[in-house]
Amino acid sequence: MAVKYTLEKKSSECEARAGVISTPHGDIKTPVFMPVGTKATVKTMTPEELKDLGAQIILGNTYHLFLRPGDELIKKAGGLHKFMNWDRPILTDSGGFQVFSLSNINKITEEGVEFKSHIDGSSQFISPEKSISIQQNLGSDIMMAFDECVDPSATKEYVAQSLEMTLRWLDRCVASHTNKNQALFGIVQGGLFKDLRKRSVEETIKRDCQGFAIGGLSVGETKEEMIDILRFTTPLLPEDKPRYNMGVGTPDYLFESVEAGIDMADCVLPTRIARNGAAMTSEGQLNIRNSKFKEDFTPLDHECDCYTCKNYTRAYIRHLVNVNEILGARLITYHNLYFLTHLMDEIRQSIIEDRFLAFKNEFYNKYGYTKEK
Amino acid sequence: MAVKYTLEKKSSECEARAGVISTPHGDIKTPVFMPVGTKATVKTMTPEELKDLGAQIILGNTYHLFLRPGDELIKKAGGLHKFMNWDRPILTDSGGFQVFSLSNINKITEEGVEFKSHIDGSSQFISPEKSISIQQNLGSDIMMAFDECVDPSATKEYVAQSLEMTLRWLDRCVASHTNKNQALFGIVQGGLFKDLRKRSVEETIKRDCQGFAIGGLSVGETKEEMIDILRFTTPLLPEDKPRYNMGVGTPDYLFESVEAGIDMADCVLPTRIARNGAAMTSEGQLNIRNSKFKEDFTPLDHECDCYTCKNYTRAYIRHLVNVNEILGARLITYHNLYFLTHLMDEIRQSIIEDRFLAFKNEFYNKYGYTKEK
Repeated sequence: MAVKYTLEKKSSECEARAGVISTPHGDIKTPVFMPVGTKATVKTMTPEELKDLGAQIILGNTYHLFLRPGDELIKKAGGLHKFMNWDRPILTDSGGFQVFSLSNINKITEEGVEFKSHIDGSSQFISPEKSISIQQNLGSDIMMAFDECVDPSATKEYVAQSLEMTLRWLDRCVASHTNKNQALFGIVQGGLFKDLRKRSVEETIKRDCQGFAIGGLSVGETKEEMIDILRFTTPLLPEDKPRYNMGVGTPDYLFESVEAGIDMADCVLPTRIARNGAAMTSEGQLNIRNSKFKEDFTPLDHECDCYTCKNYTRAYIRHLVNVNEILGARLITYHNLYFLTHLMDEIRQSIIEDRFLAFKNEFYNKYGYTKEK
Repeated sequence: MAVKYTLEKKSSECEARAGVISTPHGDIKTPVFMPVGTKATVKTMTPEELKDLGAQIILGNTYHLFLRPGDELIKKAGGLHKFMNWDRPILTDSGGFQVFSLSNINKITEEGVEFKSHIDGSSQFISPEKSISIQQNLGSDIMMAFDECVDPSATKEYVAQSLEMTLRWLDRCVASHTNKNQALFGIVQGGLFKDLRKRSVEETIKRDCQGFAIGGLSVGETKEEMIDILRFTTPLLPEDKPRYNMGVGTPDYLFESVEAGIDMADCVLPTRIARNGAAMTSEGQLNIRNSKFKEDFTPLDHECDCYTCKNYTRAYIRHLVNVNEILGARLITYHNLYFLTHLMDEIRQSIIEDRFLAFKNEFYNKYGYTKEK
């Protein structure tokens, strides 16, 4: 078995749960936040730094790696783990989301998606079989099924037809999935329509999947809509398999996802905003470019004990960001990933001690994380 | 005494010498290569990485730090060491070279230099007193005297007059030098005119300086001209004080400088070329973008045991550089600085064992460092 989920503790108040996912590259304590390493590197970080800050698993992006340097090259290198010198678990997405969000789509057919590369405009084609083939070349621990990411403005009729195609695509992914050291996760679709979500869950869980993602969220719906769909959909999934909410990375979205029964989440947010000078702190998001930090010789986050906060001041990091020095992006990236990783550790501990909702309320009340400093 | 030079061994065949410079932030074994940390950071590196790769002392640039974030801010932070979290020695230049090379000069007068900032065009003024004041605010271990960097095409008459002004400026630097925990190095000028070099040395060494630099080189003259002036000038300097050749960082220039009796050198080259994908290796300079490295799963330098070479392949680093990932610049920067630092260690050892020229010839013959791969 490529991955195995062991439930450790379930909240008595909500769907939140703590568990362990075991993989060929080690165990993952859940719930877990997964840093994104799109192009075979979590931007600005070394693998040692990722381990040091507590990352248990990282993502790689199939679309990007397929285009550059190519999955065949990575296979020759011995797989993505060896290529990038990361020996902990890796999850790869299917390429679907990027095909739909980054490329000019030429044509979506039953067979797959024809698109133009965002890099050089070349024509490319990804089908369910191709996606699995790429992911098997990459050798990730967890592969995602190739699905259609439906535009949030699509009609119910379109969403209904699309989820049926996604199910047929899932069958083809399952059929192509030959390397059983790698897990395959199915993706539940259905947009904001609960009857369609139900249909999608019922059919998806019949397939040979080792975990499930809730797809079609974080694509423009409101936070309330996302929470509503998550709370409806997640409990329909089998308890003995991991559940993954793709693309969320703010503290509130992590709390809400966990409360709905989600085990895994990922997002480029902490690394992306770091390169723009924004830090996630226990007092809310902080834009280090703000002139009020000019002579602030205190750490980014006064409650943090990460490498960045132990060694550098806001004034120094502000200077680095202002003069476009790479070390500035490095230091904030490190801190932001540490912040989310450790927040998830605390969330996990609160579940084990059955005080998740109290911890959530405490966090929300005390820190006001959406406050812009 | 801010710095003290102890001669350990002098070559029996040439002017090469091994020694130790002691400073308030620790000892420096010489000859030494000094990485450049222009804007209070050696580009892409943390202080821990610099220590790990063997850096004993780094440079800060007075001109850049004066403009951003400002020397007063750094003074408030507790000095440059504390601001950037580097507890080993720091040398600051005088700002002179950057004033002459980066700015639009308005006016050079006996009083100092009026120039427009390369950042915002604002009018600025640096005099010998101002340069020392900035450097005292920065709190470097070694300060450089403010001198005029003469254009290499200048007439002998101009060079002669300029060196006299630089001597008067040195007197003003010495008079402003109040913090005796910091050393002040004088700079010998005189262009390519040996009689002027002799005059400059004779007068400069009369002043209260704790070390000396050979100025006005690496500004467009040929390698042979540089070697000729270095071999003429350096032996005229007192044996009990360190000698510094500013702005050299290729292996051949380091060998030639050491052979002429130089103890210290610095250059942005290893860090700058790293960000363009060029690595210094024992087989010569290597441009990682070259397509022949596409599937090369061997280290950057087959004879190197640095962090980069122990953990990553040419194919991976090439990929990172091709997709503009910061980790690519980090890995090559680390390697290049390690390469030069360790080359200087080997050079030092060869001097101690009185086989410097043999080692130089061996290096030149075996490696052909200028060969472009």
